[in-house]
Amino acid sequence: MEKGSFTLPGEAGFEKLTLELADKWGADVIRDSDGTVLSDEITKAGYGIYSTICIIRDHNEWAKQNQDKLQQSFLMTQPLTADSERLTIALMADFFEEQFRVNDSADSMKYWQVYDRTTDTLVDASKWSYDRDTQRVTLEGITPWHNYTVSFLAYRIWEEISMYNHTTNNWDKEHLMQIDPVYPETQAYMKDWMTNWCETHPDTTVVRFTSMFYNFVWIWGSNERNRQLYSDWASYDFTVSPKMLDDFAKKNGYSLTAEDFVNQGKLHVTHVPGNKKKADWIDFVNRFVVDFGRELIDIVHKYGKKAYVFYDDSWVGVEPYKPTFKEFGFDGLIKCVFSGYEARLCSGVDVETHELRLHPYLFPVGLGGAPTFMEGGNPTLDAKKYWNSVRRALLRCPIDRIGLGGYLHLVQDFPDFVDYIAKISDEFRELKQLHKAGKPYLCKTRVAVLHFWGSMRSWSLSGHFHETYMHDLIHINEALSGLPLEVSFINFEDVKNGALKDVDVVINAGAAGSAWSGADAWKDAAVLETLTKWVYEGGTFIGVGEPSAVAGYDSRFRMAHVLGVDEDTIDRVCHGKWTFEVDETAAEAVMPGGADIPAKTACHLTDGKASVLVAKDNNPLLTENAFGKGHGIYLSSFEVTNANTKLLLNLILQAGGEAVDGNYLTDNADMECAFYPASRTLIVINNSEKAQTCSIRTEFGVEKVQLEAFDTVIKKI
Amino acid sequence: MEKGSFTLPGEAGFEKLTLELADKWGADVIRDSDGTVLSDEITKAGYGIYSTICIIRDHNEWAKQNQDKLQQSFLMTQPLTADSERLTIALMADFFEEQFRVNDSADSMKYWQVYDRTTDTLVDASKWSYDRDTQRVTLEGITPWHNYTVSFLAYRIWEEISMYNHTTNNWDKEHLMQIDPVYPETQAYMKDWMTNWCETHPDTTVVRFTSMFYNFVWIWGSNERNRQLYSDWASYDFTVSPKMLDDFAKKNGYSLTAEDFVNQGKLHVTHVPGNKKKADWIDFVNRFVVDFGRELIDIVHKYGKKAYVFYDDSWVGVEPYKPTFKEFGFDGLIKCVFSGYEARLCSGVDVETHELRLHPYLFPVGLGGAPTFMEGGNPTLDAKKYWNSVRRALLRCPIDRIGLGGYLHLVQDFPDFVDYIAKISDEFRELKQLHKAGKPYLCKTRVAVLHFWGSMRSWSLSGHFHETYMHDLIHINEALSGLPLEVSFINFEDVKNGALKDVDVVINAGAAGSAWSGADAWKDAAVLETLTKWVYEGGTFIGVGEPSAVAGYDSRFRMAHVLGVDEDTIDRVCHGKWTFEVDETAAEAVMPGGADIPAKTACHLTDGKASVLVAKDNNPLLTENAFGKGHGIYLSSFEVTNANTKLLLNLILQAGGEAVDGNYLTDNADMECAFYPASRTLIVINNSEKAQTCSIRTEFGVEKVQLEAFDTVIKKI
Repeated sequence: MEKGSFTLPGEAGFEKLTLELADKWGADVIRDSDGTVLSDEITKAGYGIYSTICIIRDHNEWAKQNQDKLQQSFLMTQPLTADSERLTIALMADFFEEQFRVNDSADSMKYWQVYDRTTDTLVDASKWSYDRDTQRVTLEGITPWHNYTVSFLAYRIWEEISMYNHTTNNWDKEHLMQIDPVYPETQAYMKDWMTNWCETHPDTTVVRFTSMFYNFVWIWGSNERNRQLYSDWASYDFTVSPKMLDDFAKKNGYSLTAEDFVNQGKLHVTHVPGNKKKADWIDFVNRFVVDFGRELIDIVHKYGKKAYVFYDDSWVGVEPYKPTFKEFGFDGLIKCVFSGYEARLCSGVDVETHELRLHPYLFPVGLGGAPTFMEGGNPTLDAKKYWNSVRRALLRCPIDRIGLGGYLHLVQDFPDFVDYIAKISDEFRELKQLHKAGKPYLCKTRVAVLHFWGSMRSWSLSGHFHETYMHDLIHINEALSGLPLEVSFINFEDVKNGALKDVDVVINAGAAGSAWSGADAWKDAAVLETLTKWVYEGGTFIGVGEPSAVAGYDSRFRMAHVLGVDEDTIDRVCHGKWTFEVDETAAEAVMPGGADIPAKTACHLTDGKASVLVAKDNNPLLTENAFGKGHGIYLSSFEVTNANTKLLLNLILQAGGEAVDGNYLTDNADMECAFYPASRTLIVINNSEKAQTCSIRTEFGVEKVQLEAFDTVIKKI
Repeated sequence: MEKGSFTLPGEAGFEKLTLELADKWGADVIRDSDGTVLSDEITKAGYGIYSTICIIRDHNEWAKQNQDKLQQSFLMTQPLTADSERLTIALMADFFEEQFRVNDSADSMKYWQVYDRTTDTLVDASKWSYDRDTQRVTLEGITPWHNYTVSFLAYRIWEEISMYNHTTNNWDKEHLMQIDPVYPETQAYMKDWMTNWCETHPDTTVVRFTSMFYNFVWIWGSNERNRQLYSDWASYDFTVSPKMLDDFAKKNGYSLTAEDFVNQGKLHVTHVPGNKKKADWIDFVNRFVVDFGRELIDIVHKYGKKAYVFYDDSWVGVEPYKPTFKEFGFDGLIKCVFSGYEARLCSGVDVETHELRLHPYLFPVGLGGAPTFMEGGNPTLDAKKYWNSVRRALLRCPIDRIGLGGYLHLVQDFPDFVDYIAKISDEFRELKQLHKAGKPYLCKTRVAVLHFWGSMRSWSLSGHFHETYMHDLIHINEALSGLPLEVSFINFEDVKNGALKDVDVVINAGAAGSAWSGADAWKDAAVLETLTKWVYEGGTFIGVGEPSAVAGYDSRFRMAHVLGVDEDTIDRVCHGKWTFEVDETAAEAVMPGGADIPAKTACHLTDGKASVLVAKDNNPLLTENAFGKGHGIYLSSFEVTNANTKLLLNLILQAGGEAVDGNYLTDNADMECAFYPASRTLIVINNSEKAQTCSIRTEFGVEKVQLEAFDTVIKKI
């Protein structure tokens, strides 16, 4: 088979190893990593060369001379109680002094705010003063026994990824700072630097931007017992500066305040719905990032190099799922992946080349600090498990390249790992060819995931699985990522604008008040009308957790009339509950052995008509309710496992009027398959740690397959 | 010892048994019960005679001739989805036709309402019409795919207690109806009847009203799978009628609507806060009940008889904890008791005679349908357990009388039961004498329970323990009912009006949005100022569950600054959490063996300073936080057990600066004691099913006591 489509992390000093493994793994490209360089022997060996640049943090000399052009953030002090009419608040008491420095310039201080949090009202500026020497704000003439906060702007003086690596991996290097391209001076500097860089790196074929300008928010605290105060992979808190705010006001005709960002200290997490102001800010920052990003990419292109973007770290403002993304002119996008949904996230971006950086990273320890490439580690098993998660998504969506990152020399002691990477590289290349020949077979039922953010937050909620595991939706997304289904992500405006006409099943999964459930979007009668009519005419609405939940109406779930269940709230504590019998036959038809619905929400039947497939302590956990020609399906929660993934598939197929044992489906929940009609090829995978067998109906007869743990077979049928 | 203070249920046909047991149990009064009568041999035997009357339901002849004067209720149909611009709703589809009959008179129909529940707006009356023959409402010209409800008035044609007994105990008697004294004709009839009754019952010394006029709400459904749609012991839904509504409008200058009662189908449960309209309605109905009740009591008094009221069933509007209660002129109040808090509820009413009707009721089966006085029952053990719950409250508060109810002949087969009642009757009489001699010793720390209803809902939430067990506060109240502490119940207005000056510990316990937590009352800055200052100056605020919880502010718990903990909400899902070590020493100082805090709420430390006494999975369950000279104490939940009761006492004593091993406290959580200084008498009780020993410090040395299961000792020291 043809080699290539593989990016190898090279390492100067290990030239022989680099070139040996490039051959063994079929690499066509060699890259550097954070902490490694490539020698001439490597760059001249005939491979494509990726060079990693971090445009905002590799400029400490310039940063030191331009400390007023470092990036910033709003910070809000912890509420303090006034025991008299006077209160003094030390701005930096709560925050990590190695990360932040108060910006007390005049243009910054015009955005500072003091709030009475007891009444949630702004304290007039005449009532407080700031002492530069002590960095304290003193309030006078305030109401005793109320709580007060100060919101202020701070420079970020230690780039967070560098800070994380220092503290987690005990690095002992100079603290890197991040410079803000919002200033013309920074832009001029960066463009000069970029030009110079291209001039001095003739061997580089691809410049890998890691990523663009603004990191996701990651606020550290002063106390080791609560070091990581706040983190959200998709938040815009770190894009703020007096200049960006001033420019925004000029463009939009209104100003944002500190409170619009700190939001009572809650900030605006991606897991709760945004508002008009946040949408305007995202658009404004995105416009800026695209426009200036384009200037840098143009330089790269001028030198005949390609520009790829790494979809992580300082990716905020890049928004690969916004239509503006095309304007960057990027040639490729690289996503590091732990999970299947991240492969789909990468694949779905409108760009020429999609590359996955697989795990494990070639590093002594993993993300959580556990050993990987060192005594006690088992990188081969890690690789198998990660590949197991990612592979099923690769059956469904095309990806152009895979690769690794880190210190290549670490693999020397792990020959198993080297062999396993060779194996999955070949597997990947075969898969890529199959996709090239034609799309895989999909079942007919089309699924839309409905939440506040819609397509802008397709697949990912906000970061990796282990950061968002507490949300039902990430489990749903991960399950969907490898199912033979057409999946789209829509928001509530899309519903009103006709998106349901191409959809058979809508999934709404999340906690009340979350962006994933939708919160206030469910107050919109037009949304309810459209969905209700659509179900009545044959659609299926699957609700998970607290779907369509909002307070203030006769039902807690606004789709209760469709679901046939509603949540038990304090208002219902004196209401009786319908008794029910569990419908074992209906359950057996969709539940494979081992499927399980965790009891997360307490519910009751609304009119007694829904059939209950799973219940615990008289609490319905999985229900099906006929509504017109369509159905409402309710799940108390969803946890991604092989069996639960099969259950979800079965529910969706049943909703779409398809057989749960139709063609190109396995009869073993631990195994999945994909069929590529153009090449008449069947892939079967074992997603479990044990050997498994299954039967698969095809147009050409029944295929019986036996596979070792985690194994794959690709066969013409 | 003197006998008396005991009310025996007599039974015609069992005269010998009646008089024998009257002697054995030391009865001074014999009563009839629902289903039994007394013969002359009994009534002439020299005992006081209680006669039970139910003024609203023993008049079926008159009721049949005056069916427009039956009592009523608002009912709301289940929401139905319109699949076109037309929708027909059958009013009685959801409701038990043996309980309700549509009142479609003109004066009723002016109060009917049709609601669009999708938009929560009233549908104009021009868009719907009512068909008397089919009892259906047809809506025309409405918005398709919205949900609609009809709220209407229905007569209640079967008195609910009678209905319950019929269906639970398979009674087969005429369905009793309840007549409404709101009409002058009913009032005239009732007064005549009362006069005639007094004339014809010369032997009766006490008329026991069961109770006054209006039952608590108890709405039954049409489907056996959901028969009991709605029940709330303290709700005013069953006081409604067109006339009462008209009279209210005349008096108050504004009208109430159906929606003010049905409240989107949720109705206004006692467990959620009321509003101004509900308060006005309660006052209006209470005024009516007191005024007309007084007329009936005056008749009773004119005949030289006493009037007692049974504090249950049709007690709504009586409100024994409102100052208006004195105006009835009742001579006594009888409360049936399962729990200690019910004894306190009875004792706290401002009336001459307080009587408890003990359980078990002399009936073949108990409230839940389990056997009592029949094969498989163990009424003696039941009696021990009930006495065990009630006794500890009787140590703290004076009660004047106890008694039983039901069919006396059933005890014949249970001689153990007869002996046990004789024993506890003597015990009760001894206790009563001790209280008479002087108040029991109390610890110095004074406790106030803070909730929306304040003193009007002292001790009870809304009915019995088994009906309200899901609320933390009933567990707290039950624990408090037997502790040697001064306990008051206050509301948020009381806080602002100085109630805290006589209080050392405030307890706020409940779910967010509940009346017990307080809900919107916590938006009042004045409440927060007062409580914050009071804690800062030395008070202790104990929060349980979701204390002071309300949405819309920087913290979910408005007292988070005092508690040092706050709830994890969706807004906090990206925030880090303080780590902590459990303070084992602090825990040992207050937690007896077996004490346990169920994890009901997920919380985090606000500023890391609170000490954590109990935690589960990094979730703090019991914390103490210093605030000024005072403290905030947080409990995730509270479940009443002997050990947890002791824990609560210890927390309160510690908060008040008292020793947890001071005088007149046992060192065994399964045992409690009370000391009566005036008679220098110590009572020690064993609240457990096993023999126990304890030591008790007294001013006169240490007392060591050993007691059998459930036993009591009363000794001079």
